[in-house]
Amino acid sequence: MAALFGGVEGGGTHSKVVLISEDGKIVAETDGPCTNHWLVGSDKCLERINEMVSQAKGKAGANPQVPLRSLGLSLSGGEQKEAIKKLIEQLQTRFPQLSENYYITTDAIGAMATATDHGGVVLISGTGSNCKLINPDGSEVGCGGWGHMMGDEGSAFWIAHQAVKIVFDCLDNLEVPPHDISYVKQAMFDYFQISDRMGLLTHLYRTFEKAKFAGFCQKLAEGAQAGDPLCCHIFSKAGEVLARHIVAVLPKIDQSLFQGEVGLPILCVGSVWNSWEMMKAGFLKVLNQARNKEPHNVFSRFSLLKLKHSSALGGASLGAKHIGQTVPLDYTANVVVFYTHSF
Amino acid sequence: MAALFGGVEGGGTHSKVVLISEDGKIVAETDGPCTNHWLVGSDKCLERINEMVSQAKGKAGANPQVPLRSLGLSLSGGEQKEAIKKLIEQLQTRFPQLSENYYITTDAIGAMATATDHGGVVLISGTGSNCKLINPDGSEVGCGGWGHMMGDEGSAFWIAHQAVKIVFDCLDNLEVPPHDISYVKQAMFDYFQISDRMGLLTHLYRTFEKAKFAGFCQKLAEGAQAGDPLCCHIFSKAGEVLARHIVAVLPKIDQSLFQGEVGLPILCVGSVWNSWEMMKAGFLKVLNQARNKEPHNVFSRFSLLKLKHSSALGGASLGAKHIGQTVPLDYTANVVVFYTHSF
Repeated sequence: MAALFGGVEGGGTHSKVVLISEDGKIVAETDGPCTNHWLVGSDKCLERINEMVSQAKGKAGANPQVPLRSLGLSLSGGEQKEAIKKLIEQLQTRFPQLSENYYITTDAIGAMATATDHGGVVLISGTGSNCKLINPDGSEVGCGGWGHMMGDEGSAFWIAHQAVKIVFDCLDNLEVPPHDISYVKQAMFDYFQISDRMGLLTHLYRTFEKAKFAGFCQKLAEGAQAGDPLCCHIFSKAGEVLARHIVAVLPKIDQSLFQGEVGLPILCVGSVWNSWEMMKAGFLKVLNQARNKEPHNVFSRFSLLKLKHSSALGGASLGAKHIGQTVPLDYTANVVVFYTHSF
Repeated sequence: MAALFGGVEGGGTHSKVVLISEDGKIVAETDGPCTNHWLVGSDKCLERINEMVSQAKGKAGANPQVPLRSLGLSLSGGEQKEAIKKLIEQLQTRFPQLSENYYITTDAIGAMATATDHGGVVLISGTGSNCKLINPDGSEVGCGGWGHMMGDEGSAFWIAHQAVKIVFDCLDNLEVPPHDISYVKQAMFDYFQISDRMGLLTHLYRTFEKAKFAGFCQKLAEGAQAGDPLCCHIFSKAGEVLARHIVAVLPKIDQSLFQGEVGLPILCVGSVWNSWEMMKAGFLKVLNQARNKEPHNVFSRFSLLKLKHSSALGGASLGAKHIGQTVPLDYTANVVVFYTHSF
C-alpha cells in the first residue's frame, strides 16, 4: 500500500476528512459533525477525528491499523499553541494507529493552502467567522475569529443572534426595530419550537449548541430570499461587517496581492457565502468607503473565490509539507472565482 | 418554637437567606454563592439553598429537621413558569425537612417586596441586569433580564464584556477605540492572569463562569475612579443603557407612581450601583432625551433607592403571603433614597 497523507477540515457544524496519495490524488473522503474543540471539548473532538479517519482508511482499502504518514488538521479554533500541543499529545497517546505525524493549523490556513501557495485573504463565515491575511512571504495578520462570546461578526451565529436580539429588544420596547419583526419572530418560534421568548432561554443557556443556534440563519436566508425587509437588512449588515474585516487587514496586505489578474483574491469559506447576493450591497458599501478615504489606493479590484474541494485537502498538503514531503495540488482545479469587482 | 418564614435572595454571584418570625423580625441570616439555576444548574442551585437554610435554622436555634412554614425565593432567573414548577417539585422531593410551602419569584419582585407594597421600578445591575415595573395594581412590565447571551446591558458582565471587546477590536484594527486602551488591556491581562488574548479564550468558553468574568467590572470601576478615560466612558455607557430600560417601561407606568414626594421611585439593586457617580452623566442624558420627546410629561422627578436589607426579606414576606399569612415589614427601615433628580 502506498503512503497516505490525511487532512481534516474541522468546522463548527460539519467536518470532513480526505486521504491523498503521494501524487496529490484524493483516494477517500468522509464526513462528520463539529470538531471545534472549544465547542465540543477536546475528547469528543479527537474521537470524532479518529473515527472519520478510520472510516476513510477503510474506504481507501487501507488497513485502519496502519498509521497515515501524516495528518494535517485544519480546525476552526486551532489557533492557540498550548491547546494544539495538548491535542497532538492526546492524539499520539490515545490513537497510536492513527498517524505517524501531526500538524494542526486553523481553518483559514488550511483553506488558503487548498487554493494557492501565493497568499491572499481568507474570509470565513460559517458557524463562526474569521479573517486571515496570508502574505506571499507566509506572514499572517488576523482579524476576528474569537468565537461567539467575542463577536463572530457576520457569521451564521451572528446573523441568527442579531435577528433574535432585534425581536427581543422590540418586544421589550428597548429598541425600535429597523423593519417589521413579524416574519423573523414567527420563524424564531418555529425554528426553536417555542411559544414565547422564555422558551428560548434553554437554547441560549442550558442546552446551548452553537451550531443549532447558528442554524436559524438558514431560515433568515429563506426570509431574505422571499424579500422580508428585516431579513434583508440583517444580511446587508453581515456584508458590511464582513467587509470591515477586509478593511482591518488592508494596511498590511503586500502590494503584489493587489496586482494579479483578478485583483485582491479573497477566499470565501463557509455556508453564509451562499447568501452573497443578499450581503453584496453592504459589503461593497464598506469597501467603497474605505477606498474613498485613500483615493490613490492600489486596491482597485478584488475577486471572491470559493473552494471546489474541502480545505481538508490543504490540511493534508500542509501535514505532508511539515514532514518534508511535497504533495502536489492542482490549485486551479480547487478554486473558482464567483465574483469580481473593479472600483 | 414559633413559626419561621424563610426568604432567599439568589444572585448570579452571591446569595443570602433570612429567617423571620411572624412579627417580621429577622432571626437569622446566612450567605452563600451563586444560585441562578441557569448558571449553575438546578441540582446545585437547590443544594446550595438547602444548605444555607439549614445553617440559618441552626443560627436561629431551630431544629434543622423541622420544616419552615414557607420559603419564598427571590431568584435571578426565576421567571420561567415551567422551570419554577420543576424547582419546587425537586425541593419537595429532595428536601422534605426544608419547608412546608414554597414560592419562587424573580429577584426584581423580591427586591420590590422588600422596599414597598405600592409599586415602582426595579432596576437591577449586578452580575446581570433586569428592569421591572410593578404598578400599584400589581401588574408587571419587564425589560431585559434575558441573561448575558441576550444582552444584560449595563450589568457587571456587560461592562466587563464591553471593555474586553474594545481591546480585542482595537488590536484587530476592526474598530477605533473611543480612548486609549492601555489601562484596560493591562487590567484584563492581570485580572484573568493571561499574557495574550488567546489566554482569554478558556475564560470565555471552556471554563466560562459568568460571575468570574463579571468580576472584571470591579477593576474597571477602580480604573474609572482613578480617572482612566476608557473606563469612565464604559461606565457612562452603562448609565445610558440602564436608563434606556427606564425609558422602555415609561409608557406603562401608572401615573400615581410619578406623584409621590420623591417622584418616580427607582429601586436600584446590585453592586454596579456602587459606581453610580460614574454612570450618572449617561443615565441623566438618556432620561433628559426621553423627556424632551414628550415635554409635558408628568415625569418631572425621580429618586434612586437602595435596599438596606437583603431582598431575601421580601422573598420571605411573599412566601408567607402565598400561604395567607401577613408578615409585617417595616418598609421605611428597609430602604434609603441615595439620589433625587428634578428635571
